[in-house]
Amino acid sequence: MMFASDNTGPVHPAIMAAVASANDGYAMPYGNDATTAAARQAVRAVFEAPDAAVEFVATGSVANALALACLAKPWDGVFCHRTAHVEEDECGAPDFYSGAKTVLIDGADGRFTPEALEAAILQCKARGVHGAQPGPVTITNVTERGTVYSLDQIRAISAVAKAHGLAVHLDGARFANACVALGCSAAEMTWKAGVNAVSFGGTKNGCMGVEAVVFFDPAHGRELELRRKRGGHLFSKHRYLSSQMLAYCADDLWLDMARAANARMAQLVQGLARVHGAHLVHPAAGNLAFIEVPRAAHARAFAAGAQYYLFGGTVDDGATDAPLRCRIVCDWAKTPEDVERLLEAWAG
Amino acid sequence: MMFASDNTGPVHPAIMAAVASANDGYAMPYGNDATTAAARQAVRAVFEAPDAAVEFVATGSVANALALACLAKPWDGVFCHRTAHVEEDECGAPDFYSGAKTVLIDGADGRFTPEALEAAILQCKARGVHGAQPGPVTITNVTERGTVYSLDQIRAISAVAKAHGLAVHLDGARFANACVALGCSAAEMTWKAGVNAVSFGGTKNGCMGVEAVVFFDPAHGRELELRRKRGGHLFSKHRYLSSQMLAYCADDLWLDMARAANARMAQLVQGLARVHGAHLVHPAAGNLAFIEVPRAAHARAFAAGAQYYLFGGTVDDGATDAPLRCRIVCDWAKTPEDVERLLEAWAG
Amino acid sequence: MMFASDNTGPVHPAIMAAVASANDGYAMPYGNDATTAAARQAVRAVFEAPDAAVEFVATGSVANALALACLAKPWDGVFCHRTAHVEEDECGAPDFYSGAKTVLIDGADGRFTPEALEAAILQCKARGVHGAQPGPVTITNVTERGTVYSLDQIRAISAVAKAHGLAVHLDGARFANACVALGCSAAEMTWKAGVNAVSFGGTKNGCMGVEAVVFFDPAHGRELELRRKRGGHLFSKHRYLSSQMLAYCADDLWLDMARAANARMAQLVQGLARVHGAHLVHPAAGNLAFIEVPRAAHARAFAAGAQYYLFGGTVDDGATDAPLRCRIVCDWAKTPEDVERLLEAWAG
Amino acid sequence: MMFASDNTGPVHPAIMAAVASANDGYAMPYGNDATTAAARQAVRAVFEAPDAAVEFVATGSVANALALACLAKPWDGVFCHRTAHVEEDECGAPDFYSGAKTVLIDGADGRFTPEALEAAILQCKARGVHGAQPGPVTITNVTERGTVYSLDQIRAISAVAKAHGLAVHLDGARFANACVALGCSAAEMTWKAGVNAVSFGGTKNGCMGVEAVVFFDPAHGRELELRRKRGGHLFSKHRYLSSQMLAYCADDLWLDMARAANARMAQLVQGLARVHGAHLVHPAAGNLAFIEVPRAAHARAFAAGAQYYLFGGTVDDGATDAPLRCRIVCDWAKTPEDVERLLEAWAG
Repeated sequence: MMFASDNTGPVHPAIMAAVASANDGYAMPYGNDATTAAARQAVRAVFEAPDAAVEFVATGSVANALALACLAKPWDGVFCHRTAHVEEDECGAPDFYSGAKTVLIDGADGRFTPEALEAAILQCKARGVHGAQPGPVTITNVTERGTVYSLDQIRAISAVAKAHGLAVHLDGARFANACVALGCSAAEMTWKAGVNAVSFGGTKNGCMGVEAVVFFDPAHGRELELRRKRGGHLFSKHRYLSSQMLAYCADDLWLDMARAANARMAQLVQGLARVHGAHLVHPAAGNLAFIEVPRAAHARAFAAGAQYYLFGGTVDDGATDAPLRCRIVCDWAKTPEDVERLLEAWAG
Repeated sequence: MMFASDNTGPVHPAIMAAVASANDGYAMPYGNDATTAAARQAVRAVFEAPDAAVEFVATGSVANALALACLAKPWDGVFCHRTAHVEEDECGAPDFYSGAKTVLIDGADGRFTPEALEAAILQCKARGVHGAQPGPVTITNVTERGTVYSLDQIRAISAVAKAHGLAVHLDGARFANACVALGCSAAEMTWKAGVNAVSFGGTKNGCMGVEAVVFFDPAHGRELELRRKRGGHLFSKHRYLSSQMLAYCADDLWLDMARAANARMAQLVQGLARVHGAHLVHPAAGNLAFIEVPRAAHARAFAAGAQYYLFGGTVDDGATDAPLRCRIVCDWAKTPEDVERLLEAWAG
Repeated sequence: MMFASDNTGPVHPAIMAAVASANDGYAMPYGNDATTAAARQAVRAVFEAPDAAVEFVATGSVANALALACLAKPWDGVFCHRTAHVEEDECGAPDFYSGAKTVLIDGADGRFTPEALEAAILQCKARGVHGAQPGPVTITNVTERGTVYSLDQIRAISAVAKAHGLAVHLDGARFANACVALGCSAAEMTWKAGVNAVSFGGTKNGCMGVEAVVFFDPAHGRELELRRKRGGHLFSKHRYLSSQMLAYCADDLWLDMARAANARMAQLVQGLARVHGAHLVHPAAGNLAFIEVPRAAHARAFAAGAQYYLFGGTVDDGATDAPLRCRIVCDWAKTPEDVERLLEAWAG
Repeated sequence: MMFASDNTGPVHPAIMAAVASANDGYAMPYGNDATTAAARQAVRAVFEAPDAAVEFVATGSVANALALACLAKPWDGVFCHRTAHVEEDECGAPDFYSGAKTVLIDGADGRFTPEALEAAILQCKARGVHGAQPGPVTITNVTERGTVYSLDQIRAISAVAKAHGLAVHLDGARFANACVALGCSAAEMTWKAGVNAVSFGGTKNGCMGVEAVVFFDPAHGRELELRRKRGGHLFSKHRYLSSQMLAYCADDLWLDMARAANARMAQLVQGLARVHGAHLVHPAAGNLAFIEVPRAAHARAFAAGAQYYLFGGTVDDGATDAPLRCRIVCDWAKTPEDVERLLEAWAG
């Protein structure tokens, strides 16, 4: 009953098998091997972007940091939602790699509107040389609140950015879950909607540790390579990284795992009707949800062995009898029975 | 017949098995799992340093960069050999992480002397506020030229550093090979000889991709954690990193693999007597050697399928008939037959 | 009728004379001259802090940046008001020098409360290694909205910071105006109230271009020197910088100029009663005020030659007939007649 | 008898007068004033470069740092002479501003050859992604050893740089002295010889503290402005900086002062024939010379009140009776009598 994060789950057997089969004799290092070349092609195929620059790294934080560093100048502001992972959960990695500073935009349910972006850009411009200059825009899909931006919303945000000559980056730590939620292709959610660069996540969705940084304009490729090396992120035994991504892209495994995770979350959300006093805090579209549940229900779940994060208090702090907010994340390996057990514990 | 680098070889089966067995159900992320705790303890045991701060990363470049960034101030000079990996082969990662700049020291066979270090420190100090300030000293063992610093040499260098209040870091990308060459313990080569921090390499020596950054003074631990996170190097599914290191330290596997690699190099060096015109450029003590061989011998080896790096020319550049220098590296999986085939090809 | 900023006015004749008299023969460079030593002592006397580390720079932005860089680690958050100069008007200089990122705190009239600071610190701490770590707190007095923090408010903010082990910096671009407004000494507003470091401004208050960075704990002095040099801010002909500060501190010139500027602002505020539809946006305590005035009044003032910044629109944009906000700043050289002419133009 | 540096001397009266006359009433800040516009035009006229981007700063270190930061990527190597000011005397300011690292080139008399540059570039390129990438080339004229690069030498260095697509920067801390020594125009020594950017020094040559950063391609102008602001180097009361440069360029004052300084050095060099055991270490072409003089001669000079830097020992260290090297610098205000007194003291 581990629902703390999608990074707590096991690696999919097909990914493990791919890593094991990469361990066959000798191969050139630093990405100059056949597996890496094939994995790059596989990502390009997923995105229907045969010319894209594609490089692999092991963590989502550095995928975002490298992508933004290639798009931002050191004196830029990077426009992001106040709750963005790049702002709250990467200990300043994007600032460190880019030199730029985040400019925070408010918005309900983890999403900001095109109008809010426009206002933030204009405020930046009004300061001339004295303030941060308008830089790239970054959005997350699935958002940090478990909602998704629709294709129309992404297109509208991109349109604002483009009108000001700014690039758009998509933090796709849960890219597959968003694709499944929207029923769209990877291309539709990115370059067809005006997105310039993507952090295409594998780690949270059944891989061991691999993310692809994708630039649809290959001119960014060399800078990406150099920034990765300079950050200490170029793997020498690169095939063990690439083989994960190759298997992830093969036979729609990336989508299958996301479908499974999203389905478990849908099951959970539907079952909330059985839990007295429970309700969703934000509309849950992927594999992640924020839910308010009575303290007693949390206490029962923990007693039954459930693991997840609580916000605003603890079950026994006695501060109040108000419901406590929790974050629940499903991964590909979660079973219907796991979800049912959590619901039963909550329902009491 | 791949002799280009020890990072071209396969991962040891015991390491692969450890990674596979880590893939069992759910575990807390970001190093808060039992495997990581056990791996930290295993490294502390190897170094006989029960209080050491130990963190894991996936590349040697970032192990060096983080270790030096914790020891250097942004305005410091980092004293290193002119041919150090931190200078030549990390695209400035140590500079990026620390802000400091390298101060290069000359010395034969990839080693500098205590006297040369003393002179470099004094030159730094003479510049007052105008120059880089004296910062940490970093040495590599096995060196980039395939030689080793003896324990006496390490102690003498540490003594100079300590006399000026400077810390000493050891780049141990080939730490195990140096231990085997010197017949000493990990503790003897490090804290007992005055070394403050080590990059304890696993990747080049049979792992998939794992290095331990070790500080004998645990007060550096928190900064190390924060710098790692900020660099995007904190793995969420951390157990797949830690399990490698745990297996690496178990049952002296790290030493066994280094013994195998060093033995193959010794076999090769001994066999050079059979190759007309061949000679070692530097005394080869570990698993790495620079060797001069006639062009015709290189041509024969390449025709037979050998792979290794040449310096100063190509076999068919016709520039001269002088011998060409090559770098040969053996890894744990190299067989006596592999070495024999190379020698035979060279000998003609 | 220039009211755009206190940096538009002339340099006080006593400052000009001091610079001219510094131009006498030869002197050792880089601050190793008698004038610099005397100016350091003069600042220490102003602050009743005989041991303070004191260094001079030419701009307020770098004074803040250096002070904060000496107090913050690269992974820290720097707590500041949302409208702080370090956030809005220095193009990221504090981030550049420190590596840290700003954490913005809301609050009325350009001031934040101790409670808001406490909440921001706790939010930072809750993120563990994933977020920015709690770093120094910086406040501005006179604030960017023309208000002042009282001594009690400063003490309460310092108490919160101290309880969490955090340092406090005061951006004193208009330090003298705040001292005059509060009727307190420099020591009372700083170390006696728990402030650790000050940017003691001279430029806006009648100097040519000089600010003192003051650390009450002299242990910061060497780092300050090195960061200044590394930032390219160590003047070789240092006496021309120091002589300004020496004259500024002599005979309370710094207070006299601030008294003059504050008195002009008081005259202006009092005169607002004569301007139909005019009102202060924030309580004006120093030499700076935000005032709302009808568009027609602005139009009359501009026609009469007044210069100041408008916010939210222009006099002829026809968007609405709502009053427009302006920022008015008085400097030491402003005359009662200047203020009267502006009031008359507004009053119509 | 102060010969320690050209930054120890007084400011020329015409410069002082210009600063004083800038102190007339109110002016817009941050370079938006008429004096700054005129000073930019004056520098463009000096360089016969009507489109050049020109910005002013107060120190030579930051002029170099900003110029190089606009030309170098963070992963670049900056090619410079081993004794370059950017390497030895700026506490890493160019590294701090650019992120790049210096690549040191040896060469006699403070100059490197085109062949040495070519070799350094090729060595950089050979390392691929693992080493620093080839970045801008920077030379100093007058060099740090008091010699000058001829126009032919500058052209040959530029040709090598251009062949590899690299930019060339000229550190002109003593630009005027080099122009006088070569009898050439500012344009001939820079853009006509392939130089892309110049730090045009005023501080060492009779100003209070002003340098112009000049880019012949105005496309660099905006980045230069932003980097200057972000470094805390944009003066608010900018007219006091610009007025110095305006007076410096007027009526060839910059050349007149350099002629005076160079003439005094020529007088000194000629007079060395009278000093037993004295000789020039490098050919002195400008206002700076390294000279070896017997210890007893130094002792006499110091007793007579001379001030200058010694290298390699002190007059009374008794280590040896070998002559000691000193550095002698003349500035515009040095008189023939000053030089004669030094010569007499040395001659005994």
